[in-house]
Amino acid sequence: MRTIIPFDATNPKSRLSPVLSPVERAAFANAMLGDVLEAIETTVLEPTVVTTAPLEVTLPVPVRVDDRPLDPLVNDVIEEGTPVAVLMADLPLLTPDAIRRLLDTEGDVVLGPGRGAGTNAMVVRDEAFSVDFHGASIRDHREIARQRDLSVGTVDSFRLSTDVDEPGDLLEVLVHGEDRAASWLESAGFEIQIEDGRPAAIRD
Amino acid sequence: MRTIIPFDATNPKSRLSPVLSPVERAAFANAMLGDVLEAIETTVLEPTVVTTAPLEVTLPVPVRVDDRPLDPLVNDVIEEGTPVAVLMADLPLLTPDAIRRLLDTEGDVVLGPGRGAGTNAMVVRDEAFSVDFHGASIRDHREIARQRDLSVGTVDSFRLSTDVDEPGDLLEVLVHGEDRAASWLESAGFEIQIEDGRPAAIRD
Repeated sequence: MRTIIPFDATNPKSRLSPVLSPVERAAFANAMLGDVLEAIETTVLEPTVVTTAPLEVTLPVPVRVDDRPLDPLVNDVIEEGTPVAVLMADLPLLTPDAIRRLLDTEGDVVLGPGRGAGTNAMVVRDEAFSVDFHGASIRDHREIARQRDLSVGTVDSFRLSTDVDEPGDLLEVLVHGEDRAASWLESAGFEIQIEDGRPAAIRD
Repeated sequence: MRTIIPFDATNPKSRLSPVLSPVERAAFANAMLGDVLEAIETTVLEPTVVTTAPLEVTLPVPVRVDDRPLDPLVNDVIEEGTPVAVLMADLPLLTPDAIRRLLDTEGDVVLGPGRGAGTNAMVVRDEAFSVDFHGASIRDHREIARQRDLSVGTVDSFRLSTDVDEPGDLLEVLVHGEDRAASWLESAGFEIQIEDGRPAAIRD
């Protein structure tokens, strides 16, 4: 299935600025993208990475540069034909099993909720759908589907729901990650420490 | 299956103090417990709520008062015989389907990870296991199982992973909840608002 993975190569993971330098953010974003591509590898998804700027790394999949905002970009992709999948690039806990469950879920539109009211993944099977990734996007995507009489399926996956935007999200990668992103954090000196009785990803 | 649901009736949901009064926290905790009990209703789980103090509400399931800390309490329950399930009381997004997936997962111990390195649910099928809910409990539970040569299964569920401890967690309830806890928040005046471009659960 045709699959789009949007990637911000311009100012990646800006909300991690309190804990990572710009160079580190770029390296970590690349590591997360690598984990996503590996999770896809054994599935039927045929990914194209759509990046806001040319990449410094070579990827094992097609890359297209498109610096438009996410909504018009994805909506054009949907108009080009369905089914099509959209997957975020910052899902370092993603597994082939979670992707298969996404693909096995019925619905004109299948949504993978992200923590914080986001939408981390979708399968669009009807061209009448369009996206709106701003604000509480999972709610808005349900509403768009409802207005257009499209059925909605939802996949219930912790791994798919875990996108990494903020320093607090790094703990999930250290605890549940097993691949590039987790290794990158460890090699950068992050570890699980208990602060005020609660676990956190800290580097001293 | 014998199932324990530990419940803090003494100072429930203390980390919600910045946004809820003590009376509100008690009411909201009861609403979440009600959602958990309803999700269980159509499954094979036979729950007992183990509460730190007598409850003011009447529940449709057995209630036992035990004010010991969580670890000795659960470890005694495991020693009394397996299989046994342990389920947190603050999982308002729980569904029968998520519980069935927990029960269908193989392993001497099956863990349901919670956001923030916690353990929100477990099925223990071997009495050699014991719990340690402090710190990064999901990591510690894996390690305890490893040390005792017990196999570990993990259920990948966003709904099971969503425990409600902090004000930031309330957004998940408003976005994905459909029952008591979500209704309680709405009737208390909480709604989804966009702050600095990001959704949040706010009451004015």
